[in-house]
Amino acid sequence: MMKGIQDYYPDHFGQCYGCGRLNEHGYQLKTVWDGDETLSRFTPAKYHTAIPGSVYGGLLASLIDCHGTGSAALALAKEKGINLEEYNAPRCVTGSLQVSYGRPTPIDSDLEIRGRIKEIKGRKVVVAIRLLSKGEICVTGEVVAIQVPDDFGK
Amino acid sequence: MMKGIQDYYPDHFGQCYGCGRLNEHGYQLKTVWDGDETLSRFTPAKYHTAIPGSVYGGLLASLIDCHGTGSAALALAKEKGINLEEYNAPRCVTGSLQVSYGRPTPIDSDLEIRGRIKEIKGRKVVVAIRLLSKGEICVTGEVVAIQVPDDFGK
Repeated sequence: MMKGIQDYYPDHFGQCYGCGRLNEHGYQLKTVWDGDETLSRFTPAKYHTAIPGSVYGGLLASLIDCHGTGSAALALAKEKGINLEEYNAPRCVTGSLQVSYGRPTPIDSDLEIRGRIKEIKGRKVVVAIRLLSKGEICVTGEVVAIQVPDDFGK
Repeated sequence: MMKGIQDYYPDHFGQCYGCGRLNEHGYQLKTVWDGDETLSRFTPAKYHTAIPGSVYGGLLASLIDCHGTGSAALALAKEKGINLEEYNAPRCVTGSLQVSYGRPTPIDSDLEIRGRIKEIKGRKVVVAIRLLSKGEICVTGEVVAIQVPDDFGK
């Protein structure tokens, strides 16, 4: 599998339920560049349901949240020219999250979460996000992510 | 355990990962009145972490999401004078969700999610929500919930 920015976090940041490579219970989201956009993929389980046939909104919010912090880390690493094979990736937390559910998200398909970096200002990154199933946008959102020091929560 | 509004949904609405009484993998959130406010409680597991020691933001967003739809159902049932022992509770889906993370949410404590009904207009209910750990507000949010017909997704 392609390495995501989450594979370059220091170990103590690798425990996140949404995107931590070291959390065996979690979603293990991986976020990569796809041209100018950021991309994560996720396959919902049958029990990730809400209304029958649709993905649970809380999971969709979680995916947008973690895709947002992953995208912000990618953007900061790029802006600062960090060589990820030598140095840890920056780690961001979510300041705020906005999610709009445009249509039900079919549960019987892989999901694609795509981000566009709207703003980088110091430690703050704003990411506009859309979530697609079967090629159609089902959910849109915005994440304001804040970079934390490497020893945060250690 | 006290019955939540989720115990009065028809069976086909009881599968939600966040609040469905019939989803054995899910959070099984229960939402009740507490005076003029709505209340749900949740005990995070150790693996629901993000930064070490704190609850994962996606879970917090999920709890706010499901507390919002549960609160909206309580509010609609009350406004319409529905006797829940005789008739099903109304069921709402989330139109939009906004979450602000004010401070890290300690993972070693039960969480209290409290809602205030801001607006009821036809099928739309707006709920202002705060999430507390150890008596302190950690996260605030707002949910716009929309009532769906009883046969939605059936």
